[in-house]
Amino acid sequence: MLSKNQIKLITSLQQKKYRKQEQLFFAEGIKVIEELIDSTLELVHVFCTSAMFPEISEDKKSIISESDLKKISALKTPNDCLALFKIPTEAKINTSGLIIALDDIRDPGNLGTIIRLCDWFGISQMVCSSECVDVYNPKVVQATMGSISRVNITYLDLNNYLSKTELPIYGTFMEGENIYKKNLHQEGIIVLGNEANGISAAIEKHVTEKIAIPRFGNLQRTESLNVATATAIVLSEFKRSFNERQN
Amino acid sequence: MLSKNQIKLITSLQQKKYRKQEQLFFAEGIKVIEELIDSTLELVHVFCTSAMFPEISEDKKSIISESDLKKISALKTPNDCLALFKIPTEAKINTSGLIIALDDIRDPGNLGTIIRLCDWFGISQMVCSSECVDVYNPKVVQATMGSISRVNITYLDLNNYLSKTELPIYGTFMEGENIYKKNLHQEGIIVLGNEANGISAAIEKHVTEKIAIPRFGNLQRTESLNVATATAIVLSEFKRSFNERQN
Repeated sequence: MLSKNQIKLITSLQQKKYRKQEQLFFAEGIKVIEELIDSTLELVHVFCTSAMFPEISEDKKSIISESDLKKISALKTPNDCLALFKIPTEAKINTSGLIIALDDIRDPGNLGTIIRLCDWFGISQMVCSSECVDVYNPKVVQATMGSISRVNITYLDLNNYLSKTELPIYGTFMEGENIYKKNLHQEGIIVLGNEANGISAAIEKHVTEKIAIPRFGNLQRTESLNVATATAIVLSEFKRSFNERQN
Repeated sequence: MLSKNQIKLITSLQQKKYRKQEQLFFAEGIKVIEELIDSTLELVHVFCTSAMFPEISEDKKSIISESDLKKISALKTPNDCLALFKIPTEAKINTSGLIIALDDIRDPGNLGTIIRLCDWFGISQMVCSSECVDVYNPKVVQATMGSISRVNITYLDLNNYLSKTELPIYGTFMEGENIYKKNLHQEGIIVLGNEANGISAAIEKHVTEKIAIPRFGNLQRTESLNVATATAIVLSEFKRSFNERQN
């Protein structure tokens, strides 16, 4: 059975303030939890409704009732397990290869999907403006499907960071160069902008390479792609074109 | 002020059964509503919290209170307008160009994003298995951002449909051919599978061209991309490679 204090602690971790204070976050569901256990993250405790995770020592796991799980879960339909992990200390920014920079991404699902895309395309470093949704938000953790442990994510003053780099800085703009025709570097920063407003004016002035995903429909209106789908196309194109030049 | 019957009717349209019965659906927010008004769809009525849509005749619009809007809205935080439209009669399937076929897509956000991608890449026809989420579901309508009026969407027995076509049928599979290297046709059907299970065995047997999006990360686990991001990459690649061959 869970104590009142345990319930209070875990539910408080739905808020960034308490995650920061406790240096803890949680994940739900066997698939995500297994991936996080297999990573460099430190497991604090796992709560399950039946015997699971035979590799985890008894002092780090508890079997709880479904109604207790419901009390600590952030999901409408709780899974069968929830695990607490320590928030790792921030690693140094890895400046080799491509870096994804997020300018004010607010939607947890978008952040989670972008992390998963970075993992798929072998991008190990993301930098996020301080306005971005927190990576340890339960909805982000769920959307990453475990990729969160394989991508290094640093929150910083993005304006300041970009003003000091000598790497090429890419950003998508309506009036940018056709991404399919542009020579894309394999070292550089790719900036992705806010869901409603795109890349902010302050960040835009640092962009050295404006790119665009060509539109093939007969749209009468100025439409945009969702930021996560635009990221998918941009990353695919960086990797494809580089590999083609190599062969 | 809204009558009880109006409130009852509009809220009932959150369910597919009543949308089918009434042959009506609704959209929220000025941006989406404006795009739908400008399309071939037939507006029934628009409810706003202030004077909007000067082009709409007075008998087709009402100003309502914020609390009334809240009663009929499907959003947690209601916008400032909601409009009722007639569900159009199903148009004939357009067999020229690429066709997107959805095998059991359940998430409204994914369906909405895929419709938006079709619109962006100039794909005018989608066919959906009958298990797919309904395109007039309010969450789908919101996620399409108006693209819903520019893509023809047909629900059918997908297994039966695919068994009768002579077009090439593409589907993404782990063991498929590298999409970046394959010669992709500009006439054909691209099948996208269920969020959790991918393309079902019954549908897989119709696939004539298995394709794969190469993974560049050092993943130890078998991971997959979200279906909407995979669609983004696949459509981008069909269009890019065709345009390159043309030039």
